[in-house]
Amino acid sequence: MSLPGYLKGDSKLASSPITRDAFQAMQEAALFGEDDVKALRASRPILEPQVDQILDVWYGFVGSKPFLLKQFSHPDSGQPDPEYLGRVRARFGQWILDTADAQYDEDWLRWQFEIGRRHHRVGKNLTDAAVSTALIPFRYLLPLAQPIVQTLRPFLERTGGPTKTVDAMQDAWRKSVLLQVTLWSYPYVIAGDF
Amino acid sequence: MSLPGYLKGDSKLASSPITRDAFQAMQEAALFGEDDVKALRASRPILEPQVDQILDVWYGFVGSKPFLLKQFSHPDSGQPDPEYLGRVRARFGQWILDTADAQYDEDWLRWQFEIGRRHHRVGKNLTDAAVSTALIPFRYLLPLAQPIVQTLRPFLERTGGPTKTVDAMQDAWRKSVLLQVTLWSYPYVIAGDF
Repeated sequence: MSLPGYLKGDSKLASSPITRDAFQAMQEAALFGEDDVKALRASRPILEPQVDQILDVWYGFVGSKPFLLKQFSHPDSGQPDPEYLGRVRARFGQWILDTADAQYDEDWLRWQFEIGRRHHRVGKNLTDAAVSTALIPFRYLLPLAQPIVQTLRPFLERTGGPTKTVDAMQDAWRKSVLLQVTLWSYPYVIAGDF
Repeated sequence: MSLPGYLKGDSKLASSPITRDAFQAMQEAALFGEDDVKALRASRPILEPQVDQILDVWYGFVGSKPFLLKQFSHPDSGQPDPEYLGRVRARFGQWILDTADAQYDEDWLRWQFEIGRRHHRVGKNLTDAAVSTALIPFRYLLPLAQPIVQTLRPFLERTGGPTKTVDAMQDAWRKSVLLQVTLWSYPYVIAGDF
């Protein structure tokens, strides 16, 4: 499988600015534990066959908000760039699977910081040779955790599992997304304050 | 009522670096709407008589994590500062009521940015003349949204309302905390990237 711009596990990626111990303290702060790892992994076989439909919902949301669609659009013409949208969408699909895999090794940590750079002005557009906004403003990063996790619910429910099981999977997703968005914020934060 | 260091509505506070329209776009990104305002306000009479017990749970959590308790402790002796803890706790109680009030006017916005400064090195310790860590590291700010909202659940359930109503109140709290933590992040973020 070749996924343009997907670099998890690539030796060219910069090393993680935080240690795995530091990440573990973040997990503790978010009440993220072994049960969440299990719930995430249990969500993988449920979500994998639905990845395209999930992306349809998420991209439908982005497309419905001018201040979000702008982030994939040409700054002068205001026209959305279908190639940029398409390449990011394909990696977003893989991100669903990576999140469900819940493997917090050094490769995963490095990849999170690269994802952060691609939202920030240090790396946005570069991977996809796009011409668009200089960065996703920080003010939207964190709030967007909500639609991601909220709209996942019906997809998690589709196997008809008990509410308690679905709740556990959605909670684990919520915590994982919170933690990832925190890591993605790294390039936005003043040196030394992270 | 005199609450040391509580400055919501105080004319000395700096004006908000973002407009109310910009905050509204953030609310849209978080799927925060009128139903959430109603659910937050419905939570006020439920939570108000339980504020002290809620704070006991939250402070119990902070006290159980050395990397969190450190933020209220003397950097040399490592001893927690009971006066600092107590003053922050009293304002935290008022914060519960302010969050439930869901009044997003200019006074509220200005106060959120002041709360952010008190987490960051530009303002931590000053209000309470405390001697402690220079700042709450950014990496913990966002993850801590999870225990705040998660541990609120039994308190919201205590009136025996239907699950749907409790879910709506907890979701509204979740979105509001996400949005507030985003505003609190402002002093941590590189100028121009917020």
